[in-house]
Parts: sequence; structure tokens; C-alpha cells
Amino acid sequence: MTFWQGFTQASLWFYSERYSLAELKIELIAVGDELLMGLTLDTNSNFIARSLAKNGFRLAQMRWVADIGQNIHQALSEAWERSDIVLVTGGLGPTHDDLTRPVIAGFFGDRLEPRDDIRNALLRRFEKRGFTPAPGWEVMVDFPTRAIPIPNGHGAAPGIHFSQDNRELFAMPGVPGEMIGMMEDYILPILKKKSTGQYRYRVIKTVGASESQLAMLIGDPGKLLPVSLAFLPSNDNGVTLRLSLYSNTDSGESNSLITAEHLVSKAVEPYIYCKDESTIESVIIERMRKEGLQLALAESCTGGMIAARIVDVPGSSDILNRGFVTYSNEAKCELLGVSVSSIEQFGAVSAEVASAMATGARERSNVDIAISVTGIAGPGGATDTKPVGLTYIAIAGLKGVEVQRHLFAGSREENRKRATFTALSILFDYLKRR
Amino acid sequence: MTFWQGFTQASLWFYSERYSLAELKIELIAVGDELLMGLTLDTNSNFIARSLAKNGFRLAQMRWVADIGQNIHQALSEAWERSDIVLVTGGLGPTHDDLTRPVIAGFFGDRLEPRDDIRNALLRRFEKRGFTPAPGWEVMVDFPTRAIPIPNGHGAAPGIHFSQDNRELFAMPGVPGEMIGMMEDYILPILKKKSTGQYRYRVIKTVGASESQLAMLIGDPGKLLPVSLAFLPSNDNGVTLRLSLYSNTDSGESNSLITAEHLVSKAVEPYIYCKDESTIESVIIERMRKEGLQLALAESCTGGMIAARIVDVPGSSDILNRGFVTYSNEAKCELLGVSVSSIEQFGAVSAEVASAMATGARERSNVDIAISVTGIAGPGGATDTKPVGLTYIAIAGLKGVEVQRHLFAGSREENRKRATFTALSILFDYLKRR
Repeated sequence: MTFWQGFTQASLWFYSERYSLAELKIELIAVGDELLMGLTLDTNSNFIARSLAKNGFRLAQMRWVADIGQNIHQALSEAWERSDIVLVTGGLGPTHDDLTRPVIAGFFGDRLEPRDDIRNALLRRFEKRGFTPAPGWEVMVDFPTRAIPIPNGHGAAPGIHFSQDNRELFAMPGVPGEMIGMMEDYILPILKKKSTGQYRYRVIKTVGASESQLAMLIGDPGKLLPVSLAFLPSNDNGVTLRLSLYSNTDSGESNSLITAEHLVSKAVEPYIYCKDESTIESVIIERMRKEGLQLALAESCTGGMIAARIVDVPGSSDILNRGFVTYSNEAKCELLGVSVSSIEQFGAVSAEVASAMATGARERSNVDIAISVTGIAGPGGATDTKPVGLTYIAIAGLKGVEVQRHLFAGSREENRKRATFTALSILFDYLKRR
Repeated sequence: MTFWQGFTQASLWFYSERYSLAELKIELIAVGDELLMGLTLDTNSNFIARSLAKNGFRLAQMRWVADIGQNIHQALSEAWERSDIVLVTGGLGPTHDDLTRPVIAGFFGDRLEPRDDIRNALLRRFEKRGFTPAPGWEVMVDFPTRAIPIPNGHGAAPGIHFSQDNRELFAMPGVPGEMIGMMEDYILPILKKKSTGQYRYRVIKTVGASESQLAMLIGDPGKLLPVSLAFLPSNDNGVTLRLSLYSNTDSGESNSLITAEHLVSKAVEPYIYCKDESTIESVIIERMRKEGLQLALAESCTGGMIAARIVDVPGSSDILNRGFVTYSNEAKCELLGVSVSSIEQFGAVSAEVASAMATGARERSNVDIAISVTGIAGPGGATDTKPVGLTYIAIAGLKGVEVQRHLFAGSREENRKRATFTALSILFDYLKRR
């Protein structure tokens, strides 16, 4: 018998302790062939998971189910059996593959009947937006007789709320804006009323150390009990550490969570960039705004991704003066003043050109700091001496320019994402040292 | 009894016909608290779904399961019961919350034992990459005695392949690059050998018409049977139509699928931008490359997102001459030659400034076509006359400049994504008319 056999049993017991009897058991069912065929990236489930966690709830399970009546019915029945709350997204629209409404009615032994209030709300909406609805829209007027319609502030189809035996089912449309509105305005307030305890967590976001290095610095996670520790590595946000605990006390933060956060923070201190919902770009923007600094970007292989991440933060206009997407050599020379001879001598992907790009962007924009990226994202473009993934990142400031060489080992998309995050982390580090 | 009651029954039967007995039943289990807490967007499951579909397979169900031994065990047991193939991602790493390896061993009544070949492969990898592994790495050497290790070309932990009663379980790491390598090099080849029929589909990607408008143009989807039709609307790719059919014949395409594609294509002809794996940006790049056209971009609220989508396509350097991220008014004036007086008179978000941005970008870059975007993405920035979501998009070409006014109704991120897609669709339309 090996160590691991013992651990198998132990971990089953250890981890089962993380569930509390008082916790609301919440499951999510996302309906849609498009998910199971990979035609749609499921950002809805991510949003729902995140907003539940932010509000002290935990999603116990999520599953994708095809647009097949039997399958939706079976998933509903399994989830309803073991959960307090069942959330459903998708399949409420007017087309023939939208089956969620009749299947839910059938599951609860209910029937669909047209409702005048829903019809009037839909007609008002069409009128207000000035369009003629396509034939078939009237199926959205049919509604289960024993359910409550969830108002849809951002679209046509109402959501469905069934309440039975102190358990709740909420069905929302698959359109993100409509789903988000129903979660925030209708569902979360009901969940908060039903809940007696809270699932609490803290995050510690790090940059510059690997998952294994962080694990080594922290040591045995057993000393954090009853708090659980998880490691969440990613290509575009460094490694996030998550500490979590379920607690039945309503008042304030649990001491053990505070102690655990303190212990872990101390161990990984040099690598922390934030301990909240912020991103590395929002931390950078906040810092630059405070210090009155202006930024320019010169992107080749990342082609606008760094700018897009920064502009994603409301108010980023305070610090982002401009961005150059200089994917062609011509643009590098004309816009940034890179010399043709240095491109010929060293190549567009070189420390020299990265450095000239950053210096040129800084001087021509008359800003405090400029960052440049030039690299071979792949799959093509490699040479004997320059492999796919080779990337130079330069930062130009008052005291001159610094260049870093990186070799990323992923797909084109991964390499560009990692180059983007690395550029942001170099900028963060620069601001910290400054 | 309403129409819908009848439909409930009918649809259950109708849709159940879409499954064939010969089809491989494939389920996916994605392990990780980070998914259920919304800290990680699940791009892995999307990739797996897509690559299965591309290869003629269909994913029957996917679920997220927490890092809790009991839960992983239960999910395995339910999936193994009803499937031919069970795929698992996540939880194979070296940290204490990685439970997949011991739980799988336990599920099959097997035990973990250290394997020298895995140890040697790991040591070689560490040596090659020149780093000292963190303590704890040796747990990855322990492996179920009756399983086959799946080679990991992109990382440390090997995957796990259990074969029993003509069913297969494949467990992969959660790191995207490692998972992708195992899917492509090991798992898909085995699935192809096991399969006797094929799930086939065609996509028709459209721009410029809503889901309801397309449904009206196509009419009763019943006439397409045995082919199924689905509508997939999105913020950043228009509406995709999917036609699908399972067939046991190995040879060529089914006639009914060809007929259905022909019927639907004819009905929605003016809105089609492609009928394959292409994106609107790749169609644009292909067309511009063929015609020898060069593009410049001037982005304000989209802040580099259009450039990033174009650069995402390998070889886009042939057509993208440069991009300007002119988020500040100063940058609009200096880089694009927008006059200070027109910003003062009409505001930065106006048809006049959009037009000047496109014209300036085109002339200063000496390219054939330039696109500009200026808008109020939100949540701040609105005025009495200019609401959040107001966006102007201009295109400048040989024959002058055209401007469109749009009002998007989503979140900051959604508005920026829709502005990006709308700009691309305006460019596509321009190239078509040219």
C-alpha cells in the first residue's frame, strides 16, 4: 500500500468536511447544442459562478445539456433531486430549438397557457423599439400556469420561476445581457433572503512565480485548516491563490480566514499584485493615475491586445495617451522612428528593435512611459535562430530603456496572451520599483 | 390543452430521433473549484467540444465538478455508467488540491504506484528546461497500475488512459496547451478507430440579420428533416446557422445535408459571410490579400480590439498596415489630424470626428481603406444628448468616407465587442460592394 492509497481515503473525508449542511445547494444547467459543439464559448456560466461567489454562495455543479427534450428533462430531474436552487440558462427564445419552456412545464406537471400581461409587455417592447416582430414570437406568450414570470429588462422572453417544497427553479434566457439582468435584479435578492450562512473567500493574485514555487513558499496547506487553499494558474493573469471557508455566523469575517490570509500573504509577499477583484491592468491604471503618469504602447505581435485590456477598464483614458499597432516594418519605421538599418541588421524581432520601438513611442507621444512588444506568435515566421514564441518586451522611462527576452511555448493565441500579461507585469514591476 | 402541450410531447420524440444507436456517447468532466467560482473562464471544454465536432463526434454532456473527492467520484460513476467515452480535465498537478489521479485509481479499484519511466521523463524535462522542481513534484510519478500514461508533450504531468469493457476514460491536465496536445496526438486518433458512423454538420455564418429575421426567411424547419437546424446568435460573430445530421454511412456527405444547406443558403443568401471555419476577419483578410489592399485602423472606444482580432489571424501582416489607438483627444488630433475645433464643436463621439479619424488614418498611412470607431462604451461618459452605447463607425476608401451611427445596449465589454464586430461587418460589406 502506497502513501497515495491512504491519501485517497483521507482526502475524500478531508474534502467532504468543506460542505456545511446549512449551505444552499445550487446547481446550474446550461441548455444549448452550440455549447456542446464548441460554437459558443460559455461566458454565461462563468458570470453566474462569479456572481454567486461574490455574494457568498457556491455553485455545486454546472452542466451543459443538448437541445433535446429528454435530456433537459433528465438534467432537471437530477438537479432538482439534490439541490435547493436550480438555475437554467438558454432555450427560452422563439425558435423551434428553444425547448426549455415546455420541458420545465412538463417536468412540474404543469401546462402552458397564453398570458395577456406577457403579450402586452412584448407588444410594448416591439413598439418602443420600432420593429415588427417575426412570426413565431407569440410562443413566448405561452407560460406555465403555476410559475412566476421573471421580468426581462433587456430582451423579449420572460424568465421562469417555479417555487415548490422550499426549493426554487429559475430559468433565464441564454442572451448574456438578459441573463445578467435577471440574476442581479431578481434571483440574487431571493437567494440572499433564503440563506442562513455564507461561503467566504479571499484571493491573492500573484505575478512572477510559478504554482510550484508558490506552493513551496507556503508549505503545508494543512496548517491553514479549516480554511482551504487553491492554486489557479492562468496564461493571462498570473497565479491566483484562493482561500475559502463556509461559515454559519453572520457577523463579520471569520478569524481563521483572516489568519490564513495573513500567513499566505507573508509567504508570497514579493509576488502579490492585488488581493481583490482588481486586475493587473486596473492596479497599473490606478497607480499611474495617482502619480500623474501617461502611457504609450507600441505593439507588434500582440497587435492591440495590451491596449484592449487597458481600455477595458473604465476611466483608462486618464493614463493611456495612445497606442500604436505597428505590425508592418513600414509602420515601425514611420510611426516609431525605428531605423530601416536596425530592422535589416537585427530583424524585426530583436532586442534592438523592441528597444527602438519603446523609445520612439515614448518620445513621439511625449509620455512618461512606453511599452513595446515584438515577437513571433506562430505558427509561421520562425527562422533557424528565432523560434516560434520568441518575444522581446521593452519599457522606456525617464531613466532609459530596459528589454526582456521571453520564449513562450504555446499556440499563437496563448503566446499573444502571455506576451500581453508579461508586458503588463513588467510595467507593474517598473512602477513598483520607481 | 394548448398547442404547446402537444408540442412538448412531440418535441421530446422528435428530438430523440436525432440520436443514433451507433454514435459514440462522449461525456466530459471538468474538475476545478476555480470553474465553479467563476475565477477561470472554461475555454478547455469549448476547445474539446469544438475539436470533437470537427472530427465527426458529438459531446453528449459536460459538467463542472468541485475539487472534492466524493464529487469527482460520483461524476465519474454517472458518466461511466451511460457513456462509451469519458473525458476528464484538471486535477492532475502536484499540489494538494489535485485529486483526479487518486480518485480515478479508487474508482477503478486500482492503486497508485511510482513508475520509473514517468520519473525519468520528468527528470529529463526538468533538466532540459534547466529548473529545479519544487518539492512535491514526485506525486506525479505515482500512477494507477492498470492505466496507460498519456505522454505530455507540453508539460509535466502525464495523462491517464483506462480501458475497460470496450469503454475508455481519458484524464488530461487542465493546462490548455497540455490538454490540446493530448487530445490531438492521443485521444482523437483512438476515437476515430472506435467510431462506426459520423455526426456531420454545416455552418452558415451571417451578418446583418437578426435570429428572428433569419427564421422568417427560412420558414418551417420541418422541411429540412432529417437535418436539424439551430440558430446561434452572438455579440461578436453575427448569427450562425447550424445544420446537422448523424449518419452511419462512411462514404461522402449525406444528400439530405447538402439539400438542406442549399435550401437555407438560398433563403438567407444576402447575409452570408462564410460557410466554414472562417471568421469574418479571416474572410476580410483573404479578400484584401487577393485584391492587394492595405488597411489602417483608428480605434477609440474599441481600444485595439479590432486590431487584435485581425492580428489573431496568421498572415494578417499582409493587409494590416498599422493601427492607431487614439483614446485621448490629443492622440486623435496629433496622429490622425482631427481638428481641435471639430472635437469642440461636435464632440469626440460624433459622425464628424469618426469621419475625420478614418480619413486621417487613410491619408497618413497611405493605405487603401481605413476604419475608425468612436463611441461611449460606458458605464460613464454619457451626456444628455449622447447615451451610453452611442457609437460612430466610419470607413474611408478611394471614393470618400461613409459613417454609420449605432446604439448598443449592453455592458461596456459587450458594447465594445459589438462595435468591433459591426466595424468588421461594415468593412466586409464595403469589400463586397466594391
